[in-house]
Amino acid sequence: MKKSGQTIFLKNKPKIIASAAIVGAKEGQGPIGNCFDRVLDDVLWGEESWEKAESKFLTETAKTAIEKAGITPNKIDFMFGGDLLNQCISTNYAARTLNIPFFGLYGACSTMSLSMLLSAITVSSGAAKTCAAITSSHFCSAEKQFRFPLEYGGQRTPTAQWTVTGSGCAIISSEGEGPEIKELTAGKVTDLGVTDLNNMGAAMAPAAADTLCAHFMDTKKTPDDYELILTGDLGQVGSELLIELMKENGFDISRNHNDCGNLIFDSESQDTHAGGSGCGCSASVFCGYIAPLLAKKRIKNVLFMATGALMSPTSVQQGESIPGIAHAVSIDA
Amino acid sequence: MKKSGQTIFLKNKPKIIASAAIVGAKEGQGPIGNCFDRVLDDVLWGEESWEKAESKFLTETAKTAIEKAGITPNKIDFMFGGDLLNQCISTNYAARTLNIPFFGLYGACSTMSLSMLLSAITVSSGAAKTCAAITSSHFCSAEKQFRFPLEYGGQRTPTAQWTVTGSGCAIISSEGEGPEIKELTAGKVTDLGVTDLNNMGAAMAPAAADTLCAHFMDTKKTPDDYELILTGDLGQVGSELLIELMKENGFDISRNHNDCGNLIFDSESQDTHAGGSGCGCSASVFCGYIAPLLAKKRIKNVLFMATGALMSPTSVQQGESIPGIAHAVSIDA
Repeated sequence: MKKSGQTIFLKNKPKIIASAAIVGAKEGQGPIGNCFDRVLDDVLWGEESWEKAESKFLTETAKTAIEKAGITPNKIDFMFGGDLLNQCISTNYAARTLNIPFFGLYGACSTMSLSMLLSAITVSSGAAKTCAAITSSHFCSAEKQFRFPLEYGGQRTPTAQWTVTGSGCAIISSEGEGPEIKELTAGKVTDLGVTDLNNMGAAMAPAAADTLCAHFMDTKKTPDDYELILTGDLGQVGSELLIELMKENGFDISRNHNDCGNLIFDSESQDTHAGGSGCGCSASVFCGYIAPLLAKKRIKNVLFMATGALMSPTSVQQGESIPGIAHAVSIDA
Repeated sequence: MKKSGQTIFLKNKPKIIASAAIVGAKEGQGPIGNCFDRVLDDVLWGEESWEKAESKFLTETAKTAIEKAGITPNKIDFMFGGDLLNQCISTNYAARTLNIPFFGLYGACSTMSLSMLLSAITVSSGAAKTCAAITSSHFCSAEKQFRFPLEYGGQRTPTAQWTVTGSGCAIISSEGEGPEIKELTAGKVTDLGVTDLNNMGAAMAPAAADTLCAHFMDTKKTPDDYELILTGDLGQVGSELLIELMKENGFDISRNHNDCGNLIFDSESQDTHAGGSGCGCSASVFCGYIAPLLAKKRIKNVLFMATGALMSPTSVQQGESIPGIAHAVSIDA
């Protein structure tokens, strides 16, 4: 393994040997609704609380991905994962059920690429043969915790994003076939002073631009080297800002950029305002839609870069601005 | 790197080239109070909130450790860290100030060994030369979030532990001198059904026993191979349970086991009941007290195993039991 700047160049390239995504009804009705492994009409999934339901999404998604990889849970050396809930309870309780050695992460909505990045280092180093990278979010548990109780029926601002109900899991291994992970660019916490909790895209765009510029500098690549630069979850507002910020830095990504938050919902017909968000957004779009396209070689390569907003309701109440982070994973079909 | 069971055997052994710990006044008055780099009489450290103060503890501890390593922050390739607060805001805002590429973790009070474990894999693999492993807790922010507002003046049960105000940071590098990290044992989430939020030691002891048994089986070691088996933060209740559980598994650790929660306070004179707890407990005891003893070769070797309770107030209110986790790091002087 070598490193230049913020980017790790993997010598032994781990493969994404399987991936799975399970989502809620609204996500299933969206433009890519038919690519998910399962769509749940009942977002409580028979559980007593949204938190327990979210944990079930994680558990079942992990089981599905492991099964698709043709292995059993005891063949997963380590699981890397986390979620948005306080103390990451959805993932912790899922890890209890799955009984796999577990490394807990918190990267807000950047967790899918964070978990893939750390899985890739671990597999590439020989410390593990196979790791699972997983995350989730749930509209109801997230609204309850970060914004208003659902029953309150609060109005949403035009810049607000809609937290995805769903989970995605990627199985990353040194053995087997699948898209190869080549390079990893670790993000720095970046903060340009946005304080509006209902404009997360704007808060995260500077972090996305920072990591993307670092990736191009470290690898000496240009945007044209990628068929797809996939951020998640900047939504419409954040995506426009990212394209603008990259232009200021001399990179035109307008032709090959897309965002998980823009792919998962049809904002006009689904009333999701600025697009999807939540750890489960980039996780389900990547694991359900993009990874299979890579596996079938319908896409040549992707730079997958999930973005996270690292505030809490407490920090915002105390007048703090919203810092963002983005980690990038470069994947070849 | 090789792996057997849950244990990774490092070929290139990273070194702890420096460590630092900064704590509050109560910790400074405890039995090991004179080993910390700084003791703050004002636990607000001039900030407007406990959360901001905790973030300052992290930032200043990182700066101190980096300075003691004789390097500058830009020589730290990656920082691994997290804390107990919702969405890990203390660490996220510290990472914003420090401007080091950052991987956010959540392992509750196991975060110090989790951050050291992942730093060690990353450095040993060649993906980084130098990483910082860091965590913190703050009595006031933790009480406010997990239990009662301080102003309420609630009675504490005899099994309750006292959250340490403090932060610890270890600089882990392939270059330089210091104690060597040899083996890493990843923990599974373990839950024997404890539901009492005021008896975390009992909730975490089964996880500690599980990881410790895995470590002995994977490495073919016995307790006598270690001069010190250091858990954190089981406190008095959890430590007794761990010794009992290990005895049932055929291992007598009674002679060489100690716990960070028992070392940091004098429970009788300091009224801390079952001992210290919080990410900052194992972090400050290890980084302030044990790592320097290893560096001076006053101790031959240590198995450092921080333990975490992975519940949240929400999960406990919903009737869930408290799952625990423990990650072990084997270190030679």
